[in-house]
Amino acid sequence: MSLLTVGTVAFDSIETPFGKVEKVIGGAATYISWAASYFSQNQKLVSIIGDDWPKSEIKALNNRGIDTQGLQIVKGGKSFFWAGKYHEDLNQRDTLVTDLNVLADFVPELPESYQDAEFLMLGNLTPDIQMAVIQQMEQRPKLIAMDTMNFWMDVAMDSLLKTIEMVDVLTINDEEARQLSGEYSLVKAARAIFKLGPKYLVIKKGEHGALLFHEDEVFFAPALPLLEVKDPTGAGDTFAGGFMGYLEKSNDTSFENLKRALIVGSAMASFCVEEFSLDKLKNIQSHELESRLKEFKNLVHYSL
Amino acid sequence: MSLLTVGTVAFDSIETPFGKVEKVIGGAATYISWAASYFSQNQKLVSIIGDDWPKSEIKALNNRGIDTQGLQIVKGGKSFFWAGKYHEDLNQRDTLVTDLNVLADFVPELPESYQDAEFLMLGNLTPDIQMAVIQQMEQRPKLIAMDTMNFWMDVAMDSLLKTIEMVDVLTINDEEARQLSGEYSLVKAARAIFKLGPKYLVIKKGEHGALLFHEDEVFFAPALPLLEVKDPTGAGDTFAGGFMGYLEKSNDTSFENLKRALIVGSAMASFCVEEFSLDKLKNIQSHELESRLKEFKNLVHYSL
Repeated sequence: MSLLTVGTVAFDSIETPFGKVEKVIGGAATYISWAASYFSQNQKLVSIIGDDWPKSEIKALNNRGIDTQGLQIVKGGKSFFWAGKYHEDLNQRDTLVTDLNVLADFVPELPESYQDAEFLMLGNLTPDIQMAVIQQMEQRPKLIAMDTMNFWMDVAMDSLLKTIEMVDVLTINDEEARQLSGEYSLVKAARAIFKLGPKYLVIKKGEHGALLFHEDEVFFAPALPLLEVKDPTGAGDTFAGGFMGYLEKSNDTSFENLKRALIVGSAMASFCVEEFSLDKLKNIQSHELESRLKEFKNLVHYSL
Repeated sequence: MSLLTVGTVAFDSIETPFGKVEKVIGGAATYISWAASYFSQNQKLVSIIGDDWPKSEIKALNNRGIDTQGLQIVKGGKSFFWAGKYHEDLNQRDTLVTDLNVLADFVPELPESYQDAEFLMLGNLTPDIQMAVIQQMEQRPKLIAMDTMNFWMDVAMDSLLKTIEMVDVLTINDEEARQLSGEYSLVKAARAIFKLGPKYLVIKKGEHGALLFHEDEVFFAPALPLLEVKDPTGAGDTFAGGFMGYLEKSNDTSFENLKRALIVGSAMASFCVEEFSLDKLKNIQSHELESRLKEFKNLVHYSL
């Protein structure tokens, strides 16, 4: 049993109304793997970096039980770099720099030892790369989840649709669900997206929580109102990591268990945004996680 | 025991991406009173209309147990009229017409028989009028709730703050909470607003649900994802009506009971938006309400 994640491993420069950091650790797969490591003991990472990405960070991943055999290191290459600036309304951000660097020529290669992965998380990337990873799996994983974004709907819709057809869980935000389905009602959007392939649709709404649709059912995980939100970068990936890590650990893909996983993902995301980069995500104590999960329960629990 | 509501009784013309209606029944107090009537058996209304507002609608209110002795009817006058057009994103709307008409000279007058009201709902109106109603009460009601909006923060902040100081529950949306408090974090906004007087803060987020803050606690009521949303007009008032109607009926102002009331208000609002004007709100069967409340529970209930 293991969780295989493909996605970016990167450097970020981030400015929010609450501070500014330069060339810190980032990347979808980095957030996913760290968040999942609080649950899954057996993870495998597929990505690409230049030799500028700190060796100590690779070691830190290994120490969390994450196999990095599939992490290609390009000698003399530069790692993917993203810079962004958030508005006062943290739901809005401007991308200032996107340097693909080594990511531009990324061809994922699955080590033989990765073939037993039963859970596959496809972080936001070119749909062609996501598809290539699925195709390299000799046996279809028990559960494939895929994150994507509006950018791919604009520039690679055909290949995006082919990839979406192959996955079980699609995670996108509400605007993207509307764009992909052409439906304003999220209930109708979910129905339209189920026709494209996925059995589950997770709609991420940032500070407004997340919805999980399955057949005619729907479940909602709130976002915890926080005293401080310093940096929303990676919150969606952290959510996905908590979600998939919990599923892998419990090895249960029932709707009831996906509900629990949605809450766990939301709890992990609530930690992520409290500090810049992975500063909080790398240092969550088990009592903090327990008490955060209790806060989530109190937030929505009532008797009526 | 009774619920006293002050607010507008009006005509609306509404255009949404899903249809258009001309000069239909509207007004905050109308929505509040109808929604509350599914719970409270004893309501009193304070408002003003022209003699153009249908007598049959007044009778319909009376038939729901709503005393309209405090509803002033101006002979030859015209009722308040509002026209608006909603965007594709139903959270955005443009006001096309605001004809105050008889509302321009509204001086609320409480009939003697209204003095026993223990629950007071101040619908969105000039803060001066809201304050005048509080001041006319010989005995302070057990619970005073007040709805307001950014417009009054822009044009009547002094009088708004004086009124807010006198109430127990303030209901505003997230943007307004940020504007009023100067804080972006809703947790910090709530703390700042508690210093202004209220013990409870309800933050209405439309399709993203509602938050209830009290001391250091917070509770969240989701919005039910709906197949069809035809007209969001009056949703916030319907929410307030369900909330206050439930409180009056149960005569319990504990935080635990306010949580239940928040869910009830959200359920009522989910009916409101399914049809134009009060079309659905006037015709909710008790089995529909029960099953809607069950849907709300299923939406957020999980075991973890």
